[in-house]
Amino acid sequence: MRAVVVPEPGGVEALQVVDVETPEPGPGEVLVRVTAAGVNRADLMQRQGFYDPPEGATHVLGLECSGDVVALGEGVSEYTVGEHVVALLSGGGYAEYVAVPVGQVAMAPRDIDLVDAAGLMEVAATVWSNVFMMAKLQHGETLLVHGGASGIGTMAIQLAKAFGARVVVTVGSEEKAAFCRDLGADLVVNYRETDFVDALDEAGLKADVILDIIGAKYLDQNVRALNTAGRLVVIGLQGGVKGELNLNRLLMKRAAVMATSLRARPTQEKAAIVSAMVAQVWPLVAEGTVRPIIHARLPLEQVRDAHQLLEDSSHTGKVLLTL
Amino acid sequence: MRAVVVPEPGGVEALQVVDVETPEPGPGEVLVRVTAAGVNRADLMQRQGFYDPPEGATHVLGLECSGDVVALGEGVSEYTVGEHVVALLSGGGYAEYVAVPVGQVAMAPRDIDLVDAAGLMEVAATVWSNVFMMAKLQHGETLLVHGGASGIGTMAIQLAKAFGARVVVTVGSEEKAAFCRDLGADLVVNYRETDFVDALDEAGLKADVILDIIGAKYLDQNVRALNTAGRLVVIGLQGGVKGELNLNRLLMKRAAVMATSLRARPTQEKAAIVSAMVAQVWPLVAEGTVRPIIHARLPLEQVRDAHQLLEDSSHTGKVLLTL
Repeated sequence: MRAVVVPEPGGVEALQVVDVETPEPGPGEVLVRVTAAGVNRADLMQRQGFYDPPEGATHVLGLECSGDVVALGEGVSEYTVGEHVVALLSGGGYAEYVAVPVGQVAMAPRDIDLVDAAGLMEVAATVWSNVFMMAKLQHGETLLVHGGASGIGTMAIQLAKAFGARVVVTVGSEEKAAFCRDLGADLVVNYRETDFVDALDEAGLKADVILDIIGAKYLDQNVRALNTAGRLVVIGLQGGVKGELNLNRLLMKRAAVMATSLRARPTQEKAAIVSAMVAQVWPLVAEGTVRPIIHARLPLEQVRDAHQLLEDSSHTGKVLLTL
Repeated sequence: MRAVVVPEPGGVEALQVVDVETPEPGPGEVLVRVTAAGVNRADLMQRQGFYDPPEGATHVLGLECSGDVVALGEGVSEYTVGEHVVALLSGGGYAEYVAVPVGQVAMAPRDIDLVDAAGLMEVAATVWSNVFMMAKLQHGETLLVHGGASGIGTMAIQLAKAFGARVVVTVGSEEKAAFCRDLGADLVVNYRETDFVDALDEAGLKADVILDIIGAKYLDQNVRALNTAGRLVVIGLQGGVKGELNLNRLLMKRAAVMATSLRARPTQEKAAIVSAMVAQVWPLVAEGTVRPIIHARLPLEQVRDAHQLLEDSSHTGKVLLTL
């Protein structure tokens, strides 16, 4: 089957579409014929050699996909062949077929195009697990999301609004700002023009929860932006790894800095996240309150263009590869 | 009445025993005639001008006391005059009388000397709220406590053992090490001789929860010592305020850094902590599993000596002032 691998870490030219053996579903796994795969920033990091797959995972790129079930591994009774599903993967989504533990699979939401459904799983699981399960965002609280126009950002805006929170996002252009406002963001800060801590102060707001993909570069500002009992969740390190933490400021606010990664979690934790997320988010997708925001759909062969799109950060929503 | 105040911040000589007006219990408060007051490190910081009392609190020092109820404010039916109580204070314990909201008062445990009971409240509430309520230490997990021979340390060892956790402590002398081992600590590290991260590694241990009073100086080592999904709770900053945080290490471990202070919490949060703590800890005190460890009992007039004892860090357990 066709699949995307990275023989040597590097720029987008490091991506190679090659022929590899079709995987077999192991016990407790289903084999999915991939309709589309989501492109995530973690894939770019893996391509550059900064984010190795967990032990035992395939070296084929791709952390999520949509498709239909074509074979069942030993002991699987939750799905039948032919069903449309979406899946959260430890890797292997940029391919014609992928084997995945049933706990990381969910029925594709019925009213969403199966291609577009490929862009739901990673962002919904990321936002659900971090903002709601871990940081416990409450009705009436304020959520700050960096990169409001990204796949994660657009999902965070929709979910936080659906659950009655106030949403502040940062973006890098006026175009993205307008898009985020349309999606429901209460306050949009263009970080190229305004310091987000100042913007929050001016609006008389503090962040109860921050979902951050920047890391070190924003650490001090994020702690400044936190409310009493606030929770900063770092899920990306685009702005570096080592930052200065003012523990006195954190202590006075009785606040917390958490950092986490979905990919490295054990299979049973991923399954718990998927099942909670499906229970809470799928009904909102079914009623149209939450929808996947898709920036581009490119055939697998244009995987380099897809990565370039994310690298340029000019996208709004998800970039998908179709098969 | 006699009370200890600090007209000008400074060394132990800044402490003055003066005559001040006896407080009146406001609505929802009781007036306690103080039998003994606990001396806490926060008192030393307040004396030095680094830790101002929260707005509205008295400027008399003292965060905890034991004593008997001598008057009831409006609407108080939880206690009657003459009852022996202990109390968590926003200030005012180094005095003959103190007024305190009923939510921060608890019946003194029956089988403990009322003087010694003055040393229970702050350490038990601190350990209970941080290690158990906030960091959610579980049966079978490993707790690391810095300053194992301090009031907080000796309480943390006893409580963690009582709830089935493994306890590692750091101490500064062999004498303190022996004392902590006798109290039940599973591993004791003399930080003057051994790096605690190395000591944990050698023992094949990682810390699920760390209770830290050092702050910046230990931040990086603490994060290294954390287990997957570990929780570092910083409650003191004896080793400085600003430290470098390696967010990648935190992310790979899916760990959290929390910082908090008991004193600044709103009255109803303090009341929730006191009531949970009394429900969980008092029965262990009654059965003798947990006891206050008292290093010294000095009359109020020797308040400078009491502060000097804590400053020298040669104490094991609590230092109390008696009235």
